[in-house]
This record gives sequence, structure tokens and C-alpha cells, in this order.
Amino acid sequence: MSYYVKDIAAALGAGFEGDGDFQVSTVAEPAHAKPDQIALATSPKYAEELSLGNAEVAVLWTGADWQSYDLKAAIFAPRPRYALSRMSVMMDPGQGYELGIHPQAYIDPTTKIGKNVTIGPFSYVGAQVVIGDDTIIAAQVHIGSNSQIGKGAYLREGVKIGARVTIGTGFIAQPGAVVGSDGFSFATEDVSGVENVRKTLGDQKGAVKDQVWTRTHSLASVTIGNDVELGANSCVDCGTVRDTVIGNSVKCDNLVHIGHNVTIGDNCLICGQVGIAGSSRIGRNVVFAGQTGVSDNIFVGDNVIAGGATKIFTNVPAGRVILGYPAVKMERHIEMFKALRRLPRLFKEVAELQKNVLNPRGKK
Amino acid sequence: MSYYVKDIAAALGAGFEGDGDFQVSTVAEPAHAKPDQIALATSPKYAEELSLGNAEVAVLWTGADWQSYDLKAAIFAPRPRYALSRMSVMMDPGQGYELGIHPQAYIDPTTKIGKNVTIGPFSYVGAQVVIGDDTIIAAQVHIGSNSQIGKGAYLREGVKIGARVTIGTGFIAQPGAVVGSDGFSFATEDVSGVENVRKTLGDQKGAVKDQVWTRTHSLASVTIGNDVELGANSCVDCGTVRDTVIGNSVKCDNLVHIGHNVTIGDNCLICGQVGIAGSSRIGRNVVFAGQTGVSDNIFVGDNVIAGGATKIFTNVPAGRVILGYPAVKMERHIEMFKALRRLPRLFKEVAELQKNVLNPRGKK
Amino acid sequence: MSYYVKDIAAALGAGFEGDGDFQVSTVAEPAHAKPDQIALATSPKYAEELSLGNAEVAVLWTGADWQSYDLKAAIFAPRPRYALSRMSVMMDPGQGYELGIHPQAYIDPTTKIGKNVTIGPFSYVGAQVVIGDDTIIAAQVHIGSNSQIGKGAYLREGVKIGARVTIGTGFIAQPGAVVGSDGFSFATEDVSGVENVRKTLGDQKGAVKDQVWTRTHSLASVTIGNDVELGANSCVDCGTVRDTVIGNSVKCDNLVHIGHNVTIGDNCLICGQVGIAGSSRIGRNVVFAGQTGVSDNIFVGDNVIAGGATKIFTNVPAGRVILGYPAVKMERHIEMFKALRRLPRLFKEVAELQKNVLNPRGKK
Repeated sequence: MSYYVKDIAAALGAGFEGDGDFQVSTVAEPAHAKPDQIALATSPKYAEELSLGNAEVAVLWTGADWQSYDLKAAIFAPRPRYALSRMSVMMDPGQGYELGIHPQAYIDPTTKIGKNVTIGPFSYVGAQVVIGDDTIIAAQVHIGSNSQIGKGAYLREGVKIGARVTIGTGFIAQPGAVVGSDGFSFATEDVSGVENVRKTLGDQKGAVKDQVWTRTHSLASVTIGNDVELGANSCVDCGTVRDTVIGNSVKCDNLVHIGHNVTIGDNCLICGQVGIAGSSRIGRNVVFAGQTGVSDNIFVGDNVIAGGATKIFTNVPAGRVILGYPAVKMERHIEMFKALRRLPRLFKEVAELQKNVLNPRGKK
Repeated sequence: MSYYVKDIAAALGAGFEGDGDFQVSTVAEPAHAKPDQIALATSPKYAEELSLGNAEVAVLWTGADWQSYDLKAAIFAPRPRYALSRMSVMMDPGQGYELGIHPQAYIDPTTKIGKNVTIGPFSYVGAQVVIGDDTIIAAQVHIGSNSQIGKGAYLREGVKIGARVTIGTGFIAQPGAVVGSDGFSFATEDVSGVENVRKTLGDQKGAVKDQVWTRTHSLASVTIGNDVELGANSCVDCGTVRDTVIGNSVKCDNLVHIGHNVTIGDNCLICGQVGIAGSSRIGRNVVFAGQTGVSDNIFVGDNVIAGGATKIFTNVPAGRVILGYPAVKMERHIEMFKALRRLPRLFKEVAELQKNVLNPRGKK
Repeated sequence: MSYYVKDIAAALGAGFEGDGDFQVSTVAEPAHAKPDQIALATSPKYAEELSLGNAEVAVLWTGADWQSYDLKAAIFAPRPRYALSRMSVMMDPGQGYELGIHPQAYIDPTTKIGKNVTIGPFSYVGAQVVIGDDTIIAAQVHIGSNSQIGKGAYLREGVKIGARVTIGTGFIAQPGAVVGSDGFSFATEDVSGVENVRKTLGDQKGAVKDQVWTRTHSLASVTIGNDVELGANSCVDCGTVRDTVIGNSVKCDNLVHIGHNVTIGDNCLICGQVGIAGSSRIGRNVVFAGQTGVSDNIFVGDNVIAGGATKIFTNVPAGRVILGYPAVKMERHIEMFKALRRLPRLFKEVAELQKNVLNPRGKK
């Protein structure tokens, strides 16, 4: 498929100069661009590499002297990352799934399927499921009984959705993502060592006995808002008594773990391998960088940003920027780490002081 | 399905007052309860919210004045978490799988299947497999050749079990869990940089050459005890020469990684995203909070409790409560972290001392 | 299947003494060995346990007095780990997959399949896929359209490969591994709080607004070299404009996350639960121990070794051995940690000094 430069510019809400009727098939980096590709050269540094490739058109920065790069046309993007995002929507080649409902899918006769739905081979759709219009379900997907999937969903191969899950419109799930696994919730008949440690911060109290774990089954399920994306092999557990809730426009990366009863507000960005333990409540617009961990029953306020691998054990007020294990304000973490780096030297300085103070005249 | 208040109380081993013949269908939080739900209001704080919902019966704490909450009946639970656990077993609505062996499953003719077994569509059962009575195998599950699954197992959609795996009774595996992946074990013909670093703690020794990794295949498999649960997308690797072993009543959460040759004692609780590297031995009743990591060839004694994201590089004696990266006793971690927070101030104090000691009269 | 001692020795490139025509079926630990197993007793400590088992032949260390252990034959391995690796290749019992293309697989008619290929039940092979000779594809595997798999691949149950993926020869993927999930790349129309935090290291700047995330679709795919292995439930994302690249002989363990646009050089060893965020570039012969994290857009030089749970936020020069959060040189980490352990004592010493200096005569 190909695209006119003028149409790309319009899609970006950007201006262009030169031959708007030039056509390209996709995007490339300047040095590797072929003649039918538009090069992404959004700074002078990248533009220098145009001469290494064969692009005839490029996306440049506002005010660039496009003709100096021997191009036939140029688009001027005020915000390159955003421009790439818009172009990528236009030019996505897709996964090449065969459309329609495949005869090798298993579909319960009580299922209600909307218009223009694709269901791939070896996919399973349980009883009383409702699937919205324009949904694409790849091969080997599982949708459990009584679940509802909103319009325009896109479930890639091997996605597994359990029973009674409710999902809004525009849902995207990457391969192997799981929604509706049972919560991990175990109780002991007597007070357990873990409960004592939480109170005492370090003492299990008394003679330790064998623990017999009684399972708390998940009676509730998962509710997911509109425009949510889940990464490959991510997992969202069911709630115990009320649903685990993921708000609108939440984006989760690969291998993310969301425990039972968790609630996540709108517009959160949850990066790779983040784990949120049971019953924690996350506000709106929160960003968790990769490998962040949130303890159970924690409250994280709106607009919090946690840097990579932050470990959150206590509540975090709205708007805070945090880092570290355990999490502290990012500025404080940087200050503490700088001090820690200089700590071995401090020991020497104190030893020197002790020598001077306790033996000031150098007596032996 | 509905349940009499008197039967719920009996199941909990708890007393009740009021109308024992009142029926409910499930549990709810006080503020959201409908008239056919029993509200969980196990402290005065929660009980205040009963007026916001429509519950007519509730689980309250021992000694509560139940009639003051305008209820028709109340159950008195001495230990709320445990009560919820017992109720949840009663009221679990299940996944709604169609029972019986589905014609779209692939089952090798040499398989021995017990009584009352369900196998869902697109599931694969290899040669010489033995499946115990009363087992439920959902859709898209894989059971490799010569594996044995004990009675009463419950394998959710997309669970993957490899060859020669032995599993006890009452096994539960959440969607996408993997048992019997090959161990991650690679050797180099010459001593590798990693081996030198382990000896020297920091020096790769000598000129670094390209590493050619020779794969050690897994000749053994996995043995799992009774009443074990594995979380969604968790992975348990095969052993090299003898089986990887998981004891009885071990509970693993989502995205847990258990390496080759690992042995885990009875009753351990292994939370989300924990990783245990190859050949480590974990005692009984051990609790690893989320994102804990255990290095390879480590020994962790009975009853150890590791807080969130603890990183264990050395052996841990029985009964210890640990935290941190690297792991230390939890009390010590808290003490060290408090000191670290005050460290920037210590630098100022030492500078002040130096000024006083080295230039005591303020000379210039 | 059984193997002559003389053939095992030849395969190891090792010498043997005694009855080279003795046959064994597999390997065992000394204490558990049966008469048809060769015991692995590569140090005097292990050899002592030979008397507890029933091995008649063993792999011993160079120069061992084999006859003192009452054996019929012994092989002398100069490097035990490597010897086990070579033996394991010989004796791997495999997964017992039924060979050939199963009628319950879905194979697009445009697919090109090499000689001697196995494809298991419920596997899906999309349009225009090319599969090399001698490849084994287990049950429930997915291979997306236009992907190419080199000769001798081994894809276990539930592996999911997306569209346009290119893979070299000898590829191994453990159960549930995902290649070609969409990259996790989201932009905001205006500068986001995260972008400000990255500049200021702690300040989101100005009033925080709701974030509207615009998705950047992945236009490119994944290119994987020869002799690569991916662990169970690991994930490799597609590139945005050019492919994510994994070099030759890279070995990844379970639950590893490799983000979009990442490039990984030859011979890297990437252990369990490691995460590499988008656009980072990893050199050759790099070793990341378990739970290591690499921030996005980072450069890690050749031959770097990162210890367990290292968190890498900044570029790492070639050859460095690192540890910690954030990563520092391993020696420096050990030094800093030792100082931190002694820090509470330092506070006391400084307080003592202050008392002496500021109130030298003990005045009140």
C-alpha cells in the first residue's frame, strides 16, 4: 500500500513543501531508506544521514532547509515522536490474519457476536459471551463464559480471558496476555508468621509452626475500561469480592502482573515487568517505569511517576516523582546515592578526625 | 445458586444469630451489597458502611451488636480473612467449562484417563499420560508424553506441561503456566568470564574472548507434590540429572520463575514475579514476597520470610526475616536505610568537625 | 536407548579406562545412580557418594584412582560442566512428539515447508511462511504470516511468533515464548510529565494534565540470528521502523522481556526475568544475571557482566563488571555496601567526636 506525501502531512496536522503527490509505502531511518520510503530525519544530526540512504522525501524539523538535502518533498513535524505515532497508525501492515470466523474455532452457540468480527482457528469462545463489532480475535485465543468484549477489540494469538470479564471498546491484548486468572490469596487458620512480621518489621514471634494455607477463591472478575492495552504474557487477576478494575486508556507493557482487587485509574502507563500486589489502588495518569513493584494494599496518588525498578512499600501522595528501594523522592534518592558513593571516603575522614581529637599531639 | 445463613456459619465453624434460613447467593462489600448478598463487615469501620448498601445479613466480628445494623441475621467470625476463605470455597461460581472430554481435544490413544475428567477443546494429551479422577482440564492445555497428573487437578486454559512431569493430587495451574521447560544451563569449553567474576567478585581476568555456549540438555523433569498451585504464566524448568522438586502445599503466584534442579519444601508461599535460579534449595514454610530473587546454588532455610524485592545472593539460615538488595536481616535493613537517609546530613556534620579540629581557632 | 562408555568418552573428547563396551541409558548423581546409569562424580567429594548408589561406571576427574571406587569403567573429564553438557546432548530423551505434519494443524496453503518437518496439532502457520528443514514445531504453536524460520528449529508447545519475523538456523523456543508482539511505544501530543522528569530528574514541571497516549504502531518486526534460544514465556517486541535484532548464539532464559528496537550482539547470556527496555543496544558476549533491568536507549558495551538484579540506567563501557541499583562497578558496590553496613556505627562515632570537640572538657 502507498501513501501520498500530502495525505501523510494532513494526517500529522503538519505542513509540507515540494511534491505532495509523491508516494511512499512506509517509514525508514535516513541511512537505510529506500526510494519508496519516507525518512524520519527530525534533527540536523539525523538529516546528515540522508545522504547514506535513498530517501526522496523526509519528515524534517520545523524550519529545516529541505532543499539542501536533495529531496523531492518534506514534511515539517513540530513534535517528532507524535508525528511518528500518527504515521505508524496509517502505515501499520497488520498481522495478516484471514478475516471472518474460522471453522476450526470453537464458539458456544449462546455467544453473541457483533458485525465484522474475525475469530481465528483453535480459538475458544465460551457460553454467553458477547463480542462487539469490528473485533479481531486471532488464533488460539480463549474467552471464558459470560465475558463481554467491547467494539473494536484486537486480541492477538494465545490471549486468554477468563469468565465474567467485562472489557470496554478498543481493547488491545498482545500474545499470551491473561485476564481473569484467580487471585493469589491464602489465609491461615491462626495468625501466620508473615502477619507478625508485618506488625513487628522483623520478628515472626514465637515458635514457627507449619503453615496450612487455605485458599480464598476469586468470586469476582475483572472490569477493564476503554482503549486499554495489555502487553505480551501480562496477567490480570480476578477480584475476590468485587472486580479488579483497570480504568480507561491504561497501557500495560509485557510481563506485567496486576493482582486481585487492584484498581488502576485512567491513563496510567505501566511498563515492562511491573508488579502490583493485591488490593493496591493506583490513581490517574500514573507512570510506573519497568520492573517497578507495588506492595499490597498500597495507595498511589494521581500523576505519580516512579523511575525504573522503584519498590513501593508505603502510600505515595499525588504528583510525587519517586525512585529507589524502598521508594523515596527522586531528588532525595539521587542525593542519598551520591552520599553513599562518597561514604568509604567519609570513613577515612572520620578515622583521621578521631586520631586528631583523641590523640591530638600524636603521642604514642 | 444460594446458601442458607446457617449453612455458611457451619462451614465457617462460626456462630450466628437471627434468621438462619435467610438465603444469599454470594458475598459483597457492605456499601455495594445487594439484598441477596452477605456483606463482609468484620470491623466497626466496615459495619458503618452497611447503611450505604442493601445487605440484610452480614459477617461481623465476635461480640458485635448485630441488631443495631438493621440486619435479619449475622455470622460472627473470629478471624475474618479465614472466614472469607471458607465462604469463597462454597460460593465459587467456577469458570463455566463444559464438562466431559471434548471431541476437538487431541488425546493420544495410550493415555489413561480417570473417572469424571473434563478435557476442553484444542487441548493436547501426549502418549502414556496418566490423568487422575475428577480432573478438569480447560481448553488449549498441553500435557506432554509420560506425564502423570494426580486426582482433582484443575488446569486452566493454555497451561503447558512437558514430558515426564509427575504431579500430586489437587494441583491448580492458572492460565499460561508452564511446567517442564528445558533448564537454562550453558557451559563454555574454557573457563568463562562469569566463572572468573564469581571467584574474584569483579575481575573477568585476562583478555576476553568470544564465548561459545554449549547447551546442557535437561535429562530429568519436574516432580510436584500435593495441593500445589502455580500462577498465570509462571514457569518451572526441568532438572538436568534429577527432577526439579516442588513440595506439598506450595503456592506460587503469577510470573514466577523456578529454575532447573531447584527444590522447594512444603508450604512455601512464593509471590508474584519471584525468580529462583538453578539448583537453589528452599526449605519448608518459606515466604518470598513479590519480585524476590534467589541466586543459583543458594540454600534458604525453613521458615525464612523475605520482604518485597529481596535479592538473595548467599545462604539464609532457618527462621530469618530478610529484606534488601543484597538481603540482610529486616531490622538491619531498616536501620541501614534510616542511616542512609540521614547520611547527607552526616557529611555536613563531619565537615563542621573538620573545620573545628583542623582549624580550631578559626585562623585563616 | 543406551550408549557405550567408549562412545561417550569419544563424544566428550575424554579418555576412559576399564570396560568401554559397558552400556548405560542415562546420567545420574552418584548416590541415586542405578546400574544402567553413568554417575557424575567429578570431585573426590562426589565420588565418596558412589558407594550409596549402584553405578558401575562414572565420570571422574583427571587422575582419579577409578579402581578404588569399585567401578567397571571410568571416563576422565577435564572440565566437568562441559562434559555434562556434551553427554546431555547425546542422551536427551526429547519430548516424545509424534513426527510429521498433524492433520489438526492449520497450515496456510501458501506456506513453504522444508523436508523432515513436524507440526503438531492445533498449531497455526500463516500465509507465506517459510519453514526450514528438520524443524520440529510442537502443538499449539503460532507462526504469523510472512515469517521465516531457519533449518533445525525446535519450537515447543504454545510458542507464538508474529508476522514478518526472520529467524536463523537452530532456533529453540521454550513453551509460551512470544516473538513479535507490538512494541510499547506511546507519545503525547504535548510534552509529558515523564519527559520533564527525565530532563530535571525529579520535577514534572507545571500543572499536571490528563495524559492522552497516542500509540506508535510497530511497522517493523524481529530479526533473530543462528543458534538462539528463548526461555518459557519470554517476549521479544517488534521494532518501530527497523527490526528488533538478536544476534547469533544469544541465550535467553524464562520470562525475559526484550523491548522494541533493541539490538543484542552475538553470544549474550540473558538470565531469568531480565528486562531490556526499548531501543537499548547490547554488545557481544554480554551476561545479564537474573532480574537485571536495562533502561531504554542505553548502550551496553561488549563483554559486560551484570550481577543479579543490576539496574542499568546509564551507558556501560565494554568489559565492565557491574552490580547494584543503580549499577556501579562490582568492586565499588561491595565497598559501598560494606560501608553502609557499618554506617549506623559511624553515626555513633561522629556523635562521640562532636561531644569531644564541641565540649572538650565535659562542661555542662
